[in-house]
Amino acid sequence: MSEKLLVVGSIALDDLQTSKEKRKDVLGGAATYISVAASRFCPVNLVGVIGDDFPEEHVDLLESRKVDLAGVEKAKGKTFRWSGVYADDFSSRETLDTQLGVFETFSPKIPEAYRKNRFVMLGNIHPGLQLKVLEELLGSAFVAADTMNLWIDTTPAELNELISKVDLLVLNDEESVQLTGEQSVIRAAAAIREMGPKMVVVKRGEHGAWLFSDVEPFFAPALPLEQIVDPTGAGDSFAGGMMGYIASQGIADIDAIKKGMIYGAAVASHAVEGFGADYLAGFRMSDIEKRVDRLQRLVSLN
Amino acid sequence: MSEKLLVVGSIALDDLQTSKEKRKDVLGGAATYISVAASRFCPVNLVGVIGDDFPEEHVDLLESRKVDLAGVEKAKGKTFRWSGVYADDFSSRETLDTQLGVFETFSPKIPEAYRKNRFVMLGNIHPGLQLKVLEELLGSAFVAADTMNLWIDTTPAELNELISKVDLLVLNDEESVQLTGEQSVIRAAAAIREMGPKMVVVKRGEHGAWLFSDVEPFFAPALPLEQIVDPTGAGDSFAGGMMGYIASQGIADIDAIKKGMIYGAAVASHAVEGFGADYLAGFRMSDIEKRVDRLQRLVSLN
Repeated sequence: MSEKLLVVGSIALDDLQTSKEKRKDVLGGAATYISVAASRFCPVNLVGVIGDDFPEEHVDLLESRKVDLAGVEKAKGKTFRWSGVYADDFSSRETLDTQLGVFETFSPKIPEAYRKNRFVMLGNIHPGLQLKVLEELLGSAFVAADTMNLWIDTTPAELNELISKVDLLVLNDEESVQLTGEQSVIRAAAAIREMGPKMVVVKRGEHGAWLFSDVEPFFAPALPLEQIVDPTGAGDSFAGGMMGYIASQGIADIDAIKKGMIYGAAVASHAVEGFGADYLAGFRMSDIEKRVDRLQRLVSLN
Repeated sequence: MSEKLLVVGSIALDDLQTSKEKRKDVLGGAATYISVAASRFCPVNLVGVIGDDFPEEHVDLLESRKVDLAGVEKAKGKTFRWSGVYADDFSSRETLDTQLGVFETFSPKIPEAYRKNRFVMLGNIHPGLQLKVLEELLGSAFVAADTMNLWIDTTPAELNELISKVDLLVLNDEESVQLTGEQSVIRAAAAIREMGPKMVVVKRGEHGAWLFSDVEPFFAPALPLEQIVDPTGAGDSFAGGMMGYIASQGIADIDAIKKGMIYGAAVASHAVEGFGADYLAGFRMSDIEKRVDRLQRLVSLN
């Protein structure tokens, strides 16, 4: 039976620049991408903060996508803003500006009704806040967390405590190396699993994603694309699609996680074809199913 | 029925340096790796040149592996030598020295008995020489060629002529971008197929290899490894394993090519675990079959 997914993290307005286009006030933030991606598979309970400048149309969009916003606090001040510019080939990006706004003093408050959510995706925020969320839950079946290089550098103790308490850590290959000092992804994943999580998903962008667990590794390829419009939120869309699929199955066994990674890859391939989480919201399940089929045929010998 | 594979290219002695080890006079060269990799699947006819300094033990090794050396010319002078140093994480390498020796004036001479070989792998050498080989053949079923950035820069006309005449071009992702000016691998492969070859295999090192043809793309993952000892010859071992498998099937249909890529990936994963083509020669077919199984389970949902 499908369960709800609790999503905690940043909601943002992004100013984005690629070699072809500049866009302002794009709907962004890790929790936004995760929620929009997951909401096609299961109901989503979102916890985050927005400022009084947050456009009503974005609220409407999220609500229309079965994202419950009872956990989204509207605070006095500006919504979190990120501004970045991508290299021509999208191999790197540079942050031009970060304005924390209302996110600076954000402390997640979990509505009573959300406390019994059993499937949880902690988007990339300060690990102390991720830990606080875990303390407020009444017990969970499957908690996944993402993180970033900033927290590996600046708050290692809290990050390590968080990692010890989650079922699945999701991070990219560079972060896995930075976190463990191991050069090979397979060794880095083994070192992370010794820190606590039963499972590790290492995201490698256009090179797909790896699942390491107590059984053999699993690899989910990325769909080869002719063109990328905006890679912002691709990793969060992948994680959201994956966790949404898992919650929709009501069980986080290895088969559901593998299948979830394929769904996540399909959703992420859609996410990079346009700007913002509102573009992502436009995906049709029939298109995602077609991409899931293509992803499976991509590695099929027959 | 298994057929023979004709292999043409460089035979070398390499001086190699990694963060952990230095080795001198290592058996190398594209044609050597290709031949050793292919020879477990089918008989190999090798065309190349060695100098009078080439160790007899290497000749013995190649002959012991069913590599026919009637096409290997022994010339007065030094064997081709390459010397390189790898970055700590093997993400790049620097050429310290190249001594062409007898390779400088090499012109492949195809023994009469080899001219009817129907399966051909042209290792990376001057495209003018690759073209010369094709002219001497009596007709072939399936010709694959590798190339490198040097020829894309310096001999584009001859390279384009070669590409127009082969069935399969094998190259790495950077070369595919350099050759076509297309940033996305999928577009680069489409542009290459417009130049002539029915098929393109794009090698991406630890990120696996892609096959582009007139049907849907196919992806062969690389085996995740805990440790790399020496990546020299990995791409050639992949191509050799692939072409050896295809020749062993006697038919180069899409199913054989896909399966060949998995065998190639298995052989390449062994190649990087030790120094030189003589290390590669030590692989057991039972080990390769196990790795082929692992590679297939890596992407299996069940």
